[in-house]
Amino acid sequence: MKESPGVVDLLGVLAYAELSAYARMTEDAVTLAPSLGDRAALSELAVTEYAHFRLLRDRLADLGADPDEAMSPFVEALDAWHTLTRPSDWLQALVKTYVGDGIALDFYREAARHLDPSIAELVDEVLVDEGRSQFAVERVRAGIEAEPAAAARLALWARRLVGEALSQGQQVASVRPELARLLVESGPADISRLFATLQEAHGKRMAAMGL
Amino acid sequence: MKESPGVVDLLGVLAYAELSAYARMTEDAVTLAPSLGDRAALSELAVTEYAHFRLLRDRLADLGADPDEAMSPFVEALDAWHTLTRPSDWLQALVKTYVGDGIALDFYREAARHLDPSIAELVDEVLVDEGRSQFAVERVRAGIEAEPAAAARLALWARRLVGEALSQGQQVASVRPELARLLVESGPADISRLFATLQEAHGKRMAAMGL
Repeated sequence: MKESPGVVDLLGVLAYAELSAYARMTEDAVTLAPSLGDRAALSELAVTEYAHFRLLRDRLADLGADPDEAMSPFVEALDAWHTLTRPSDWLQALVKTYVGDGIALDFYREAARHLDPSIAELVDEVLVDEGRSQFAVERVRAGIEAEPAAAARLALWARRLVGEALSQGQQVASVRPELARLLVESGPADISRLFATLQEAHGKRMAAMGL
Repeated sequence: MKESPGVVDLLGVLAYAELSAYARMTEDAVTLAPSLGDRAALSELAVTEYAHFRLLRDRLADLGADPDEAMSPFVEALDAWHTLTRPSDWLQALVKTYVGDGIALDFYREAARHLDPSIAELVDEVLVDEGRSQFAVERVRAGIEAEPAAAARLALWARRLVGEALSQGQQVASVRPELARLLVESGPADISRLFATLQEAHGKRMAAMGL
């Protein structure tokens, strides 16, 4: 089957992003959730990530790619991202779920824009926000209301998440040029538009949380 | 709604058993799986446990019980079970999934025998073996074939799992007499039958793995 050269890379990085997000959110739910109800609520989001992983893995197999091989180039950078951004409390975990994963997902969505519609549709499907935002936003807002001093601390945390995301993203782009090319197919104008889009989406998320 | 007094306890312990098994299997998959394929395979089983948790939680809510309250009495014993039986390699993790969870599930199934059919059906549904056995059995057998010395070590590990399961089970029974009563409703003859059933099922699992 004829596909853009970056397609397997894109589905591979996305598949491992979902597989690792599922595991980290599950761990955060166990170690940081203040109640069994909150633990279940974050676990619910984690399991949705796993379902997305399954779709991506199956599509990779349909394309004739080995899913494990497609994911391997991205294991190190994504694991590093999670290690460098391990939340130390429940609100940090929620901000990470919303802001950190949010910016990553914006990248993936941009990368899929120029691809075959069936791939773009799949990417849209796995990136759909199934209540994740509402869940995180509501609880972070309530947390800040209960403890206003938390806002500054969480804003700093969000900035760190973005910094680490960009840094790991850059590393991925440098080793997988085909993938990077998906993001900037039409040259410099596209780069400006990309950064404007990402910045706008990030700003909206911060505002929604009251940060 | 009129229910046997142990029903909420049974669904509560089972719900937390599934919620915690999901989290621990997810963690074992990340830390111990030898390949991304194995990691995904164990994660698949973990996510199935989560789906079962969801069914149990919803049934508790339908019965008018607070799912968090129903689960809380069992958090300590089940967390202790997981802490005391943390696998240190991939084969131990698989044996735990199969043998450890297996014996716990036998207990739950026995406890549900005398209950309202709709509860017994739900318990059967969440305890169904969806490929868990085949997955663990195949890989443990292959592991022993590759390294015959592993068999004795894993047999010892399985014995420890059973010992810890019985010990935690006893603790649960002592604090939740209603739940214990579900297991031995008809007196001593029932106890003998129960232990014979559990022993037989455990023996079959050990034999299946070649232990």
